[in-house]
Amino acid sequence: MKLYFSPLACSLASRIVAYETGTPLQLVEVDSDRPDGAYAELRAINPLAQVPALVTDDGRVITENAAVLQYLGDGTLVPTDRNERTKLHEWLSFISTELHKTVYVPLLDKHANEGAKAYALSKAPVRIAALASRLDGRSYALDSFSVADAYLVAVLNWSTVTPVELPPAVVAYRTRMHERPSVRRAMAEEYPLYAGRKPAIPQRTFQSAGS
Amino acid sequence: MKLYFSPLACSLASRIVAYETGTPLQLVEVDSDRPDGAYAELRAINPLAQVPALVTDDGRVITENAAVLQYLGDGTLVPTDRNERTKLHEWLSFISTELHKTVYVPLLDKHANEGAKAYALSKAPVRIAALASRLDGRSYALDSFSVADAYLVAVLNWSTVTPVELPPAVVAYRTRMHERPSVRRAMAEEYPLYAGRKPAIPQRTFQSAGS
Repeated sequence: MKLYFSPLACSLASRIVAYETGTPLQLVEVDSDRPDGAYAELRAINPLAQVPALVTDDGRVITENAAVLQYLGDGTLVPTDRNERTKLHEWLSFISTELHKTVYVPLLDKHANEGAKAYALSKAPVRIAALASRLDGRSYALDSFSVADAYLVAVLNWSTVTPVELPPAVVAYRTRMHERPSVRRAMAEEYPLYAGRKPAIPQRTFQSAGS
Repeated sequence: MKLYFSPLACSLASRIVAYETGTPLQLVEVDSDRPDGAYAELRAINPLAQVPALVTDDGRVITENAAVLQYLGDGTLVPTDRNERTKLHEWLSFISTELHKTVYVPLLDKHANEGAKAYALSKAPVRIAALASRLDGRSYALDSFSVADAYLVAVLNWSTVTPVELPPAVVAYRTRMHERPSVRRAMAEEYPLYAGRKPAIPQRTFQSAGS
């Protein structure tokens, strides 16, 4: 299978899941600042030109992070019990709609205006507090590591380059995830690709993955 | 089961699914302008105070529209085939993240600043074009009516009160959905509740449900 990714974007979660499950992936890096090659390929299969996009061995295209993750984690990192699966759906929806799209996208988007960034930042406190409450007393989003954790760690990394404040319990969760071999390996591979193309960013969070 | 809803919000989709499947629901209306009663109950079980929130007969709380819909539609309006289920996940993620949260929420939010509204509107054309492309030649999001259609019709209703332009193919899809008995009934019940508490809005779209 072929996975289109961008370093440290939410596609990091797919790489983590692939390492967790031992799924071989052909990883194709895309860069929106170089709109030919891989980026043009991606846009041809996904008009939003967003990562991740997965092309299966029989040629089907799967877009949207929650869909790609549930496909890659099926049978291992996606629960089969109905109630647990419902909890997974809640987590994936909360992470994607409330954290990823509502809070982080405008803050990370260099084309977003100041009003949009202020609006996004105003949405953060209640959502981050809800996240902390959801994680309270838990090692993982569900009872064991799942695709929701892979997605959540990818999103929480972005706090390092945004003004979003994370409470200690959420930072502790992220640090625990960074100690997981699959996450450590994925971060170690994508961080240099990210650092090589972007202006300097604070490195403390990403270094904590290996500490 | 008890469903917390707000008239013509995305919780409309849960009502449609309940009517499609014959699931009895106790429907509890919440109004953020009256922050006691049902709204206080909702906030006690969902810190984001968002609808829909479902309380099952054995007391479990399910939040997040994609999760509530997949729970309510399980066995009937959620496909069991793995590839079809993946397509459903793609649709639910696309509708919730790209349309609902990215485009419509800031446009509908009376507290959103002008920059946030302009940013949201700038995101609409490529997303609405992608939606039109996804619907091209199809009667439904999947091969038959599913929870994705229930969600999509609820979201597309909001174009009536926002500057988002829908191409003819998308309008035609919405009109077809409005002719469906479950949708017609749900709209007929929620529209008066909505109209009774809000300033006047253009009625042509909602009236088309019954025409």
